[in-house]
Amino acid sequence: MELELAQLDVHSRYKLLVALVVPRPIAFVSTRGRDGIDNAAPFSFFNLVGDDPPTVVVSIDRRGDGAVKDSARNILDTGEFVVNMVDEALLGPMHHASESFDRAESEFDACGLTRAASRVVAPPRIAESPVSIECRLHTHVPFAKRDLVVAEGLWLHVRDGIVDPATLRVDGARYAPIARLYANLYARTTDRIALDENDYIRDLQRRGRA
Amino acid sequence: MELELAQLDVHSRYKLLVALVVPRPIAFVSTRGRDGIDNAAPFSFFNLVGDDPPTVVVSIDRRGDGAVKDSARNILDTGEFVVNMVDEALLGPMHHASESFDRAESEFDACGLTRAASRVVAPPRIAESPVSIECRLHTHVPFAKRDLVVAEGLWLHVRDGIVDPATLRVDGARYAPIARLYANLYARTTDRIALDENDYIRDLQRRGRA
Repeated sequence: MELELAQLDVHSRYKLLVALVVPRPIAFVSTRGRDGIDNAAPFSFFNLVGDDPPTVVVSIDRRGDGAVKDSARNILDTGEFVVNMVDEALLGPMHHASESFDRAESEFDACGLTRAASRVVAPPRIAESPVSIECRLHTHVPFAKRDLVVAEGLWLHVRDGIVDPATLRVDGARYAPIARLYANLYARTTDRIALDENDYIRDLQRRGRA
Repeated sequence: MELELAQLDVHSRYKLLVALVVPRPIAFVSTRGRDGIDNAAPFSFFNLVGDDPPTVVVSIDRRGDGAVKDSARNILDTGEFVVNMVDEALLGPMHHASESFDRAESEFDACGLTRAASRVVAPPRIAESPVSIECRLHTHVPFAKRDLVVAEGLWLHVRDGIVDPATLRVDGARYAPIARLYANLYARTTDRIALDENDYIRDLQRRGRA
């Protein structure tokens, strides 16, 4: 089966693309508005795209009426946000936060999330999240129906026990974030495949990167 | 545990970030150089970031000596590439293609990949891939050690049996791409969680997007 993407109606195109480009990591993004209200919402058009400088992208679609969503508004207004990773325990509150709330209502309060102070940005991180990255806006790439945010990661918070402080190795048994598939589906990442070493892996090891 | 990312040495920072921002979808990217040589290499600093227009990002690091890698060189030279998704059967050839090859040698030949003609771009797609998206460069965001490519998806190829042509629904039993973790680790996406419907899911359904 093959098709020209521009020939599909927008809903079919969305449905196909989000079901085929999987799994997607989830950023549970916390922001603070100019009005002081803390927002939290999950996005899976997200990934790490650089390490030097640490760089992430998050893409936030506009509302049906074309209005910019609170998360995007706050990021563009303040230049600051926190990416909070999502494990299985946080999936329920994240799912709740994916619904629409009045701008005056904070998802932290509505969804039972705990504010933890960030170190270098104003928005709080989500205390229940295993990994949080404080971020500052680098580049805004606007599309007609979407805002693509490229940002620098500044400060990292990791729940105790996940990273060995001496070796900085991650304990895979203690950290297995949930990934986004499509519709109401998510995927665990606990079923793993270890490939044999090859020159690529050995090069990572030689350079201290694995 | 918390730390300022800029205070880490570059190898530690890379190791931590790629192990914590997981799982990442994999783009097995095929390109064609000005010299006519077809290149194929996998990248996991990749994701779908838009549907209208269909938009993907791929971030390609420079070589240790600062030189632009063949994939990035070809994309910047020609503006064209193909994103090929990776299932378990394709994992071995993909792993092989992650190694370094001479520019004159095509990974298609070295790794036993089959060229299939694309419809609107010059680079071939990988016939063994379950899903391929022909792409055209939209925006190039250069970093000191990395090239972030924002591109529009033009044409979609899906292996027969994965998508129902009538409903455009994906058969999850026939499509479960492998995700990137870190070091030599990958994750299957077959262990799934279906969340209850909420207003967000119902809104997707009402708009025909789920």
